Amino acid sequence: YSSGDVRRVTLIPGDGIGPEISAAVQKIFEAANAPIAWDPVDVTPVKGRDGVFRIPNRCIELMHENKVGLKGPLETPIGKGHRSLNLAVRKEFNLYANVRPCRSLEGHKTLYDNVDVVTIRENTEGEYSGIEHEIVPGVVQSIKLITETASRNVASFAFEYARQNGRKCVTAVHKANIMRQSDGLFLSICREQAALYPDIKFKEAYLDTVCLNMVQDPSQYDVLVMPNLYGDILSDLCAGLVGGLGVTPSGNIGKEAAVFESVHGTAPDIAGQDKANPTALLLSAVMMLRYMNLPQHAARIEKAVFDAIADGRAKTGDLGGNGTCSSFTADVCARVKDLE
Amino acid sequence: YSSGDVRRVTLIPGDGIGPEISAAVQKIFEAANAPIAWDPVDVTPVKGRDGVFRIPNRCIELMHENKVGLKGPLETPIGKGHRSLNLAVRKEFNLYANVRPCRSLEGHKTLYDNVDVVTIRENTEGEYSGIEHEIVPGVVQSIKLITETASRNVASFAFEYARQNGRKCVTAVHKANIMRQSDGLFLSICREQAALYPDIKFKEAYLDTVCLNMVQDPSQYDVLVMPNLYGDILSDLCAGLVGGLGVTPSGNIGKEAAVFESVHGTAPDIAGQDKANPTALLLSAVMMLRYMNLPQHAARIEKAVFDAIADGRAKTGDLGGNGTCSSFTADVCARVKDLE
Ligand SMILES: CC(C)[C@H](C(=O)O)[C@@H](O)C(=O)O
Ligand SMILES: CC(C)[C@H](C(=O)O)[C@@H](O)C(=O)O
Repeated sequence: YSSGDVRRVTLIPGDGIGPEISAAVQKIFEAANAPIAWDPVDVTPVKGRDGVFRIPNRCIELMHENKVGLKGPLETPIGKGHRSLNLAVRKEFNLYANVRPCRSLEGHKTLYDNVDVVTIRENTEGEYSGIEHEIVPGVVQSIKLITETASRNVASFAFEYARQNGRKCVTAVHKANIMRQSDGLFLSICREQAALYPDIKFKEAYLDTVCLNMVQDPSQYDVLVMPNLYGDILSDLCAGLVGGLGVTPSGNIGKEAAVFESVHGTAPDIAGQDKANPTALLLSAVMMLRYMNLPQHAARIEKAVFDAIADGRAKTGDLGGNGTCSSFTADVCARVKDLE
Repeated sequence: YSSGDVRRVTLIPGDGIGPEISAAVQKIFEAANAPIAWDPVDVTPVKGRDGVFRIPNRCIELMHENKVGLKGPLETPIGKGHRSLNLAVRKEFNLYANVRPCRSLEGHKTLYDNVDVVTIRENTEGEYSGIEHEIVPGVVQSIKLITETASRNVASFAFEYARQNGRKCVTAVHKANIMRQSDGLFLSICREQAALYPDIKFKEAYLDTVCLNMVQDPSQYDVLVMPNLYGDILSDLCAGLVGGLGVTPSGNIGKEAAVFESVHGTAPDIAGQDKANPTALLLSAVMMLRYMNLPQHAARIEKAVFDAIADGRAKTGDLGGNGTCSSFTADVCARVKDLE
């Protein structure tokens, strides 16, 4: 990208509170003069001639054109055979690295004030392979699939991320004491990549040990890289330490494309009532700006969000404040303009 | 068991600090006049005629005779092909339920003071099946095995445990949104058992959500039941909330036999220096006494341990005290006698 040009981003507003928080992001981006044009698109699955529901072609085309997407929360359609749309998007575009930074927020007190970790999760295989079957009645096997290729993609991503973000240490999280071959392969690829990044410290740790240590002293961790399910667990645990999924961003990144998304639910109970907190989607959009090489815009919006939360007057109800989605958005917009 | 008789218990002192903390337990049991006679036995694997290392016959015989064991930490022998001895013991005697209560301790402050949860982990299959292979170079699959039988064993154990221990609620922890068939089977069996225990509340929750909520507010959970790996993770997380594996007990329970064990490491760095904390093994031994239907002895020793930690004067170094393994043991012995 050359800065100055306007870049098009596919916007999947999502369900429930998705449209409100997406509108909030759009307003704040406008206030920040971010050179982004949005292509909103629906991902409600459509039934193909073969009777199978799929992500609409328009969405897939747009993603292939724009390469970058921002996505609100999606409901998973009920009924057998419907794969989670969240997962479908990750797999469709081979977004092999899921990045979730968790940092203690000033103005949103939790039991921890020293959290600053980034979980990097393999996003396409592992326990999420979808390969399962009943062998005989009452005996089911699910297959955890670990490949050298996907492991290398995510491991090399983690070290590159660490280097580019001034991080000191990458810890590979595993259970290779139990899954010697699968986690063993993952671990061996992490070691191989570690050797290519002598400037980044490399550690290995068992998942159970990391969970235990994380709740005792999160400051001992920096960047963590791991197979799919472990990342699902550890990223939620870390989010819990700093206030939950309403304040933590997420990015799904592949070689060609990336989708940034809030990973909280659709919150149907408060949808349309101007109560939703747009922070997670906003911080995801900030990650997106950095990914698109727009660090100044990213830093300005990020600072405005953090300041608005620290100030507290416009904080939404989930953070214990009296603000609404619109008042919080207006507050962030004003701060963004002041920072210009 | 009829009370009054002396019962024999197989004692596996274990490696590293194992012998010291086992001796501490024996002293305290003597002070408490617990009607237990110990049969100490070594589990160092011996090489069979076929070249394979196995748990010594004497240990297996003793377990079959006594049905109850107490086990200190074991080193896992280095080298390929050596299965973890911890796991070998669990599988050998089909100890299908692993029970780990975690409770906030007075006198050992952590960030949390309201933890009182019990994780009940399926202990024989799941991700620990040991079935793995490389399909083609660079592509490995590990099999997660879920059976109706093992799921029913552990689910029914969990509800029975809840009922007998005055617990209100059992939560089944799963990822059936991803592993629809395997975790789906586990979940359906939990539902089936829940229907048999109308006096116990039943909930279902995703593992990631439980991790997030657990670090925000552990008081919302009571008894949790789950497949093997999830239990490995969640039990360590919960242990972290209350001070770590040095203060949390564990029991492996099957239809015919049970082994209670401390799940911390062998701590070779402090072994033989009278610095080890016997609390985890002691509290495991207390669980054992309850299992053997000796609730008075259990309650008395448990109170003595909790009081000694709350008092603090004899606390060991890992808990921030100046005590030694022997001074702590002497303190607990004195308290046990006072409580008579
Ligand atoms: C919604 C669900 C399928 C998803 C997952 O399990 O990955 C979610 O928990 C997440 O972490 O994004
Ligand atoms: C030592 C190891 C094999 C074991 C496990 O993974 O189950 C341990 O973490 C535990 O929880 O007892």
